[in-house]
Formats: sequence, C-alpha cells, structure tokens
Amino acid sequence: MPQPKAPSPRTTVKRIPQRANYESETIYQILDEGLVCHIGFIADGQPVVIPTAYGRVEDTLYIHGSPASRMLRSLQQGIDVCITVTLIDGLVLARSAFHHSMNYRSVVIFGKATLIEDAAQKLAALQAFTEHIILGRWQEVRSPNHQELSRTIVLSLPLTEASAKIRTGGPIDDELDYQIPVWAGEIPLKFTAAVPINDAKLAPNIAVPTNLKNYTRPQKLD
Amino acid sequence: MPQPKAPSPRTTVKRIPQRANYESETIYQILDEGLVCHIGFIADGQPVVIPTAYGRVEDTLYIHGSPASRMLRSLQQGIDVCITVTLIDGLVLARSAFHHSMNYRSVVIFGKATLIEDAAQKLAALQAFTEHIILGRWQEVRSPNHQELSRTIVLSLPLTEASAKIRTGGPIDDELDYQIPVWAGEIPLKFTAAVPINDAKLAPNIAVPTNLKNYTRPQKLD
Repeated sequence: MPQPKAPSPRTTVKRIPQRANYESETIYQILDEGLVCHIGFIADGQPVVIPTAYGRVEDTLYIHGSPASRMLRSLQQGIDVCITVTLIDGLVLARSAFHHSMNYRSVVIFGKATLIEDAAQKLAALQAFTEHIILGRWQEVRSPNHQELSRTIVLSLPLTEASAKIRTGGPIDDELDYQIPVWAGEIPLKFTAAVPINDAKLAPNIAVPTNLKNYTRPQKLD
Repeated sequence: MPQPKAPSPRTTVKRIPQRANYESETIYQILDEGLVCHIGFIADGQPVVIPTAYGRVEDTLYIHGSPASRMLRSLQQGIDVCITVTLIDGLVLARSAFHHSMNYRSVVIFGKATLIEDAAQKLAALQAFTEHIILGRWQEVRSPNHQELSRTIVLSLPLTEASAKIRTGGPIDDELDYQIPVWAGEIPLKFTAAVPINDAKLAPNIAVPTNLKNYTRPQKLD
C-alpha cells in the first residue's frame, strides 16, 4: 500500500487547504483517469504550458514525444517542471453569482524530468502510454520498431512531490439567499465516448471490439 | 469580423505546423467551449501550473479569484503568463503503437495580465464568467454585492498573442501495417452532463430549468 506524500513547500495547498489530499492512492486515481496533462516549464525566461499525453507506472509519470520537440529537449536538461492534471466533475450552481463553483479533482506535480535511455525501460513506458489510453491495446498492435524507438524521447518524473486538490458536493449559499426562487444544485459532467468511427481503410471483416464500444475512463481490468 | 492573429515568435507552432490555426474565430470557439484553463507562471524562479475558470469578452480573457490567491497576487504584478485551454475530441487508434494519437483542439496564450479596477468593467467580467458556464444564469441569481466585489480579484489578458493547434481525423498507418487484423479508427470523446442534482436545501416547488436539463458545451443562444 503506497504511503501518503509528505507535503513539500511547493505542494502544500495554501488556498482552501481543506480541499487538499496527499494520499498516493488518490493521486494515482486522478492521474489514471485523466488523458492529458499540462506541462509547465520555463523557456527563454518565460513560462510555457503545453498539453500532452502521459502514462503512469507506480510512483513514476512518463511523458514522451519527438526529439524535435522543444519542450522535450528543454525538459531532458533536467530543468524544473510542473505537471498538472485536472478532471472536471461538475458545475456547482448557487443562488448568488459569487458562490458558483465547479467540482473538480486535480493533481499538481513538481520535479525534474529524467531521460530514459535504457531500451527495456523505454519500451515499458511506451506500453504504459498505450495501456493508459486503452487497456489491452498494446498486445493487439504492432510494437515500436528500432527506428520508431529512436524517434521517440521518453522522460520520467517521480511522483514524490505531488498533491491533489478536490472539490465535491453542492453549493453553499449565504443564509439570506436560500429564499431566492432559483434552481440550485450540481450538474455532474462526465467525459463520455460516442460510437467508434471505423478507419476509412479498415478491412470489412473487422468489428469494433467490445471494450471500445463501451469505452470509459479510467480504463479498468474487469 | 475579427482578423487572424499575427503569429509571434512565441505563438508560432513549430511542431507539426500544419496543425496550427491563427484565426480569431477558431481561437474564440475553443475558448468558449472549454471550462477550465491552465495558467503557467513563474514563482520563486520555478514554473507553476494551476487550473482555473475563465471568461471571454471579445478579444480579452478574464480570470478571477480571491485576493488570498498567490497566483493572482503574482499575476497582477504584470509578470509573464502562459494560459492554455485544451479540448480532447477523441482517441485515434492505429495499427501500430507508434501511430496512436488523440484528436484535440488547444489554444495557447502568452502575455501579461492587468488588474481590473474599474467597478463596471469588473462586474462585466464577472457576468462573463457566469454566462460562460451557463448562458442566462446571471439574470437569475443574486449579483455580487459590494463586499463580494472587494473579495474578488479580476485580471484581464489580451488575446493578441494567441494560437490554436488542432488535430482531426483517423489514424495514419505505415503502408505495411494496413494488413494487421486489428480494429483501427477514432473513438470520439465528449464532455456530457448527467441528470442535475437538486441542492439539498432546494425549495420543493423549483424544477430544473430546461437549459440545465440539456446542458451542453459551448453554451449557445437559441
């Protein structure tokens, strides 16, 4: 059972600290449900935020991309990075404009990335990316060949310095506002899949697999 | 009709430039559909990425929050900021692991934020936040009072230096891989609303309004 994270000065949630969560299991669940992280780094003295896919293996986050990517070339120098994953769970509608809010779960990670040079570790990370998106997909598709591996940079970031922030529940209105005759409550939001679209070049005898017909986040073993 | 943005060195899309889009209308559509932006700034020499709500009025983005927020206190000093909004439109499943991708629309904005001090402009920005989430809501709820306004910081950021990046369509496989007998195509993803949950203190005679029963993004005038 993973231990709770020890909050660092950077990961200690200061605003509304009752929403903070430092449990590794909670952090993992949020990361496993998200599809895209937002990577913040400093380039030429200025902040840059780029969305990208990711994968997780135990207490390590992996990102990847082309050797031509400025972000990856910068990060592999070991500069400071901040990676944030946000899930929006609902809209919170109060009786006053001021008390409107959103329900969300977010994870903020600080650290420095490390280039993965070991071939086996690199392949394991790429497997984690694919499986993060669709469980079981890695076994079904062609694995990366030597040329593809050399055209892919994989970086790792330890989840040592990470924290979660979570808001749940309905609105909290000022006492006098409860008499305002307007609907109040929560609109839950969910990321859902529509009907899969066959590739134009798909062979006619290949049907959509069941796990893709009923695609949900996070991907879970039955 | 708004003009296309002139790409700056910071907003010129370098990786896969054929995905770049500098049209103001495209940028506005992505911003109007999103609910949360990721704000990147430098604090104590290190990058920080924080998710937050936002609103747009013409060529200006507004963010807001508590005077106790370190992010807002930092940004109102006029430091460099990067704000990114990402919409995930689908998973792209190829026959090789390497060619898996996602369809997405993202906007990246660079600039410096300005504190809104004029009371009327501040109120207009707060109206934009509420209307960004639910069109028509502002008229139905109690407007911010003097105390709430003083407890809210609103910052503006011009959309002068902004660009979009968009991927659409199915997978593109290597020629030899088309013979692999695996399903390939796109799984469209959408942010959808579930049944609204009444606030526990809702008066029994208040029904869920139609626009909330059928909530979709972006919010549109009929």
